[in-house]
Amino acid sequence: MSELVGNVLVGQSGGPTAVINASLAGVVAEALNHGEIEEIYGSLNGVLGILNEDFIDLAAQSQQTIRNLRHTPGAALGTCRYKLKKQQDFERVLEVFKAHNIRYFFYAGGNDSQDTADKISKLAQEQNYELRVIGIPKTIDNDLPSTDHCPGYGSVIKFVSTTVRELACDNEAMGQNDLVSILEVMGRNAGWIAAGASLAKRRDHPHDAPHLIYLPEVAFSSEKFVADVQRVLKREKYCMIVVGEGLVDADGNYVSAAEATDSFGHAQLGGAGEYLKSLVEQNLPGIKARVAKLGITQRAAAHAGSKTDADEAFLAGQAAVKAAIKGETDVMVTLLRGDADHYTVETGLAPLSEIANGVKKLPREWINEDGTSMNHQFVRYAQPLIQGETPVPYENGLPVFAKFEKSRVEKLLGAYQL
Amino acid sequence: MSELVGNVLVGQSGGPTAVINASLAGVVAEALNHGEIEEIYGSLNGVLGILNEDFIDLAAQSQQTIRNLRHTPGAALGTCRYKLKKQQDFERVLEVFKAHNIRYFFYAGGNDSQDTADKISKLAQEQNYELRVIGIPKTIDNDLPSTDHCPGYGSVIKFVSTTVRELACDNEAMGQNDLVSILEVMGRNAGWIAAGASLAKRRDHPHDAPHLIYLPEVAFSSEKFVADVQRVLKREKYCMIVVGEGLVDADGNYVSAAEATDSFGHAQLGGAGEYLKSLVEQNLPGIKARVAKLGITQRAAAHAGSKTDADEAFLAGQAAVKAAIKGETDVMVTLLRGDADHYTVETGLAPLSEIANGVKKLPREWINEDGTSMNHQFVRYAQPLIQGETPVPYENGLPVFAKFEKSRVEKLLGAYQL
Repeated sequence: MSELVGNVLVGQSGGPTAVINASLAGVVAEALNHGEIEEIYGSLNGVLGILNEDFIDLAAQSQQTIRNLRHTPGAALGTCRYKLKKQQDFERVLEVFKAHNIRYFFYAGGNDSQDTADKISKLAQEQNYELRVIGIPKTIDNDLPSTDHCPGYGSVIKFVSTTVRELACDNEAMGQNDLVSILEVMGRNAGWIAAGASLAKRRDHPHDAPHLIYLPEVAFSSEKFVADVQRVLKREKYCMIVVGEGLVDADGNYVSAAEATDSFGHAQLGGAGEYLKSLVEQNLPGIKARVAKLGITQRAAAHAGSKTDADEAFLAGQAAVKAAIKGETDVMVTLLRGDADHYTVETGLAPLSEIANGVKKLPREWINEDGTSMNHQFVRYAQPLIQGETPVPYENGLPVFAKFEKSRVEKLLGAYQL
Repeated sequence: MSELVGNVLVGQSGGPTAVINASLAGVVAEALNHGEIEEIYGSLNGVLGILNEDFIDLAAQSQQTIRNLRHTPGAALGTCRYKLKKQQDFERVLEVFKAHNIRYFFYAGGNDSQDTADKISKLAQEQNYELRVIGIPKTIDNDLPSTDHCPGYGSVIKFVSTTVRELACDNEAMGQNDLVSILEVMGRNAGWIAAGASLAKRRDHPHDAPHLIYLPEVAFSSEKFVADVQRVLKREKYCMIVVGEGLVDADGNYVSAAEATDSFGHAQLGGAGEYLKSLVEQNLPGIKARVAKLGITQRAAAHAGSKTDADEAFLAGQAAVKAAIKGETDVMVTLLRGDADHYTVETGLAPLSEIANGVKKLPREWINEDGTSMNHQFVRYAQPLIQGETPVPYENGLPVFAKFEKSRVEKLLGAYQL
């Protein structure tokens, strides 16, 4: 392997998580260790920043800012919904890379982002431009293949299961076998997050919440739902339900869209949680139903983040730089779980093309026969991911988050027409 | 003052908060200091527990359980929606008090609960049964008169403003002058909680979220709303809105009920937040709107509680016992703010009848002219209430909460027909 001297560009893509900035901190911290890396640039708003040459100088940021990234939610560089499609877009990326002597490109994101990174790398190879491209896994959805789990997932399920445990205290105080409490969580296509709520249940405490979990993996039936709720309310003071936003019926239609249409004709007003509430009110007179919909707050809840998750995200960022320095390219960093009884993790590498085209589903055999609870295999998988509390500094009663000084890198090319 | 020897009964009433159990811990801790107090009973589910003689022995609980109460949300004794109405109900209360030699009655709750406590005390006086009745303030709504603020309020606004700050990181990463992010918070009749979200703004950072706060105190106009959002999006990458659930139009009707009716004819599906989202989608094509509705999670979020709030709740519980021992009755403990530049608080007492019939409104002069932001007077009032973080023990990645051993006190009377 030849030593490759040049500059680093790092970008963030897709929906933010509580720990994507921890990966960024890992990249910066590790990059500073290697003499062949000259400048460390961050691309503002993912690929959009590349097309527009919107870079900031990450080496110019204070140590404190980089340290604070380890617990700052969102995506400090910004992200984008723009996708590179035209050949012209990819050509422009290469042109910009050449102009700024970018030789190392690190991209934190999900499937689509890894696909983009892969295509950029292929084009560079065609043009004989030496470039090392390493993906960093990121998604609360936990659906990337080839990695045991994804940075971002542990923190979201730690917050969701903390919330379930707290809600349970409140619901138990209020309920008289007549209260249905519904918590809607994210997960458009998979139930990984809703499933994670099951960690709130203590071992050998069968009465603990959540009592019912509805996942996109199990076709929803309103008749079964009403019967499930009635059964729980016979036994418990309250019935706590966690529902994934992407709940679908037997025909694969989102249930919220199927029946709840507002007066303006918009489908999905309120979503799956409100839909379940309406089913309770329609079918179970005298039962009170309440809904909370965490929305984006759940993926941003760094104040209740998992230290394991934040540490692994940082590790993934470091591993990306180490791999690139060793000459690797066209791979994404993965997390590999050890075989020992106690949880251990180390990083590996998997081809970007493999990540781009795969989706990791929640295994059907981890869901109990009843379709509304998770078994011990899931718990054994997920419990290690929520261990430890991310230390967050507070000032004047509120958490302090990192914000970059926008020390812009000088543009070297003309403007690009998007 | 004569020494009054007998038993304590303590109850919890109304909607739980993150710190009502801290007040309970204060009562228990202080009661143990006084020789004239023989037994310390807790009434399960407020007045319902009195009518049914459902008491537990609080002195029999472990030290650890009492300590854990200081950070446990909900209401560990349970609460109820039952109201004493019939004369017969009040007579029963006295009968039960006499049977168990209850001489000290402490009741944590809001206006209605203090009214109930007052009526019980009056009846005891009529019957020459010596009883000391002290109220303990409790409400996230912060609407009790005669007290500077209410235990429970500081914690809910600390959580809400933490959430706003985190959401802001996420929204800023995603927005391109086209994102409206809506956070619906509690407050059926007053905007105290929505107003508290303004603490998320750092001093001298005018671009910080929240950008718009809609309060029940300011009549809602959809035209002004759309103009407000457009103005913010010209200036900022995203527009973050905090809205109180009890938003009303110029005629005093809840806005969510006014226009959004679902296909089953239920009003209010989704509430104020979903309503604002529909206004954005209807009037601002191309703008993306997202909603989170914290629901009960906000008042139960003990993991992000205010230490100041929890400490004051504990202090209020202690003060209630001290006052009763001194011979006080028919009063509620209040929190009095000192005049010093730095925040200090001490407890006072106010007549129960004064609490029962008053409501403390959010002062109109603390709301800016624009009707969508709070001024420095509000910040000066609210900021001290969120200082410090309640220490919460974690086990296996999740907070540990107190649960009582249900060591029931023997019933001495026959069953009561509710």
